[in-house]
Amino acid sequence: MTVATGELRIETKANGGMSDLTNQVQDLVTKTGLREGIVVLFCPGSTGALSTVEYEPGLKKDIPNALERIAPKDRDYAHHATWGDDNGPGHVKATLLGPDLTVPFTKGILTLGTWQQIVFIECDTRGRERKLVVQIIGE
Amino acid sequence: MTVATGELRIETKANGGMSDLTNQVQDLVTKTGLREGIVVLFCPGSTGALSTVEYEPGLKKDIPNALERIAPKDRDYAHHATWGDDNGPGHVKATLLGPDLTVPFTKGILTLGTWQQIVFIECDTRGRERKLVVQIIGE
Amino acid sequence: MTVATGELRIETKANGGMSDLTNQVQDLVTKTGLREGIVVLFCPGSTGALSTVEYEPGLKKDIPNALERIAPKDRDYAHHATWGDDNGPGHVKATLLGPDLTVPFTKGILTLGTWQQIVFIECDTRGRERKLVVQIIGE
Repeated sequence: MTVATGELRIETKANGGMSDLTNQVQDLVTKTGLREGIVVLFCPGSTGALSTVEYEPGLKKDIPNALERIAPKDRDYAHHATWGDDNGPGHVKATLLGPDLTVPFTKGILTLGTWQQIVFIECDTRGRERKLVVQIIGE
Repeated sequence: MTVATGELRIETKANGGMSDLTNQVQDLVTKTGLREGIVVLFCPGSTGALSTVEYEPGLKKDIPNALERIAPKDRDYAHHATWGDDNGPGHVKATLLGPDLTVPFTKGILTLGTWQQIVFIECDTRGRERKLVVQIIGE
Repeated sequence: MTVATGELRIETKANGGMSDLTNQVQDLVTKTGLREGIVVLFCPGSTGALSTVEYEPGLKKDIPNALERIAPKDRDYAHHATWGDDNGPGHVKATLLGPDLTVPFTKGILTLGTWQQIVFIECDTRGRERKLVVQIIGE
């Protein structure tokens, strides 16, 4: 058994924008030479989230729209009173979505469906460069 | 440490229908003979999700109802324009719920609560046969 | 590779109240002496959830408020008819949030962001003493 800890650097898009990480994650798994195990992705920040999606132009609108309904930007947020920030809805979205994703691989290949991609979801009010943790555990 | 990769095949129920996987997952853990570790469940598809619930008839209605409020079927979804599909709400629900679940086991037994079951949640507009990935890592 | 299974005991706060577990989880990782791996947190109950958040007074209001919008307490829940309970919304919230959280650590330190804490979210209608599963896998 081996543990390999690495990172991904990505450019993100504000307000629910999604970034497809699938190829980069598969490359990191391939480089380890491991055959069976898990890749654990983690966002070290409280306004970003990880999930999977069929990464196509329609859902790149539908997912942010659904998140906006859950935490609308025109509501009052107590978080804004604490810091003078404007990203209370982003914190709410990220905590509800969750910062982690675990994907098994077998024979060196991620066990994703054909129409399923690994995505980072930027919940903050501005895009930025993000560093994500990628840890691979397997044999 | 051992990694054992397997699968479960289940029949699912449309529009938020839940399937109780607890006994099948415990059986797979038992068959490995491992005592301490995790079972990672993963749905290789973008309209299904995994979580836990008290699996009883009331919540089998309440959970789908809550998901319908989050992504109502009578809204417009850009996903429908992309493919002519009708399952935009299902994609939204599945991405928000997440495709993965990790449950620790100790002394060979899943660490679930007494009134807590592992469930697959079918977010698509039709039930189907699904294959889920089950990977067990432990010693 | 080692698997260490332990537990945390916490006092929780009703209706979306959050408890910061970060220091206790880091202490458990430190005690194992492991350098690279994951900590898997799991709530063995169907009305509690785990996630991360910027743990500050504002979001301690905003997160419960958002959960209340997703599963309002004044709706009808079929769960109440099953048991005569009043915690249907809590079950819905917990299933949507999910009972598990996986956080990688490297060089013995959790890979959290500076403004990011690990939290338990009590979704039930009363606070209580809870026991959480903490399993650490690494080398």
